[in-house]
Amino acid sequence: MANRIITISREFGSGGRTIGRQTAQRLGIPCYDAELIEKIAEESGLAGDYIREKGEHSVHANPLANIFMSDRSNGGFSMQDYLWKVQRQVVCDIAEKGSCVIVGRCADYILRERQDVLAAFIHADMEKRAERIVRVYGEDVDTPILKRVKEKDKRRKTYHRFYTDEEWGRAQNYHICLDSGVLGIDTCTDILCSLYEK
Amino acid sequence: MANRIITISREFGSGGRTIGRQTAQRLGIPCYDAELIEKIAEESGLAGDYIREKGEHSVHANPLANIFMSDRSNGGFSMQDYLWKVQRQVVCDIAEKGSCVIVGRCADYILRERQDVLAAFIHADMEKRAERIVRVYGEDVDTPILKRVKEKDKRRKTYHRFYTDEEWGRAQNYHICLDSGVLGIDTCTDILCSLYEK
Repeated sequence: MANRIITISREFGSGGRTIGRQTAQRLGIPCYDAELIEKIAEESGLAGDYIREKGEHSVHANPLANIFMSDRSNGGFSMQDYLWKVQRQVVCDIAEKGSCVIVGRCADYILRERQDVLAAFIHADMEKRAERIVRVYGEDVDTPILKRVKEKDKRRKTYHRFYTDEEWGRAQNYHICLDSGVLGIDTCTDILCSLYEK
Repeated sequence: MANRIITISREFGSGGRTIGRQTAQRLGIPCYDAELIEKIAEESGLAGDYIREKGEHSVHANPLANIFMSDRSNGGFSMQDYLWKVQRQVVCDIAEKGSCVIVGRCADYILRERQDVLAAFIHADMEKRAERIVRVYGEDVDTPILKRVKEKDKRRKTYHRFYTDEEWGRAQNYHICLDSGVLGIDTCTDILCSLYEK
């Protein structure tokens, strides 16, 4: 079956989101990134449904309060678990709707059983990512740039590992992995576009 | 600097060598694989030089005997270490000579400081590789196919890890990683060709 959906996992600062947007724009299909998926999840009311469904322990009216009430060792669910479930559902719905690019949210893993998905991973070396982050997002006077990159990588890696049981950045988990620092953002976009509907 | 040399690391049965040959043929440049590099090393007489150079312990006239005489814990070198040194030198010489494709022999690692190298990793899932191996190399009645694939993978992984201290198949170690089982041998060739001299 032809690739109709392109998922992009990416290291912080590798330009993965930009590559996703450019690819989608050139192919004339929508691009969903983490922010958009969160927004859809919020608007859908799914979060509320999931929280109500889990009646086995008291759930605070303020969802954020659940973070402090949760206890996984007692079989409880953390707020992050609810968000994961809701966002997973949103990713599945998006994929069902039509061709698109999805950036982040472990979409490669969530959609791994589909035959029409191309799973891409974008990475770059630390220096090039640091340079890009400062250029695109600006300096953060409180946190040195390398510390910012390392912390963000660690978060993504841990999140991915927890919900997928897979190792983040292992080549075998993706159909294509690209070093955007060496190949460049535009070449990465060219390659992904060339694989669409192949 | 433009990519003048393409190195290909590959999982056994992924078609990496075929992709390397096709790419080289289409670009009109030579392709060196493990067998050819071994042959060049043998003919060069480098192996003899390296063995003579290591005078600190007795070396048998028959190089194979050194395998049994070596003892790394005493600071000795195994025959495999000599071969590694010789083949590393051959890879460096080849790269110096002109544009080419080099398959295997940790060439990506050996040439990592050069700015004109595109390092590729080719992989595919176990089933597709097993199917290809039987098709290309035939059945081995004594060893079941999945066992053959796993053993060969283990050997390549261990060899790579020992001489490079890097994790084999980690996306970040390559400029591009391709799943030949999903993308197909010809599409992988197309992509590598499109990156030559970029």
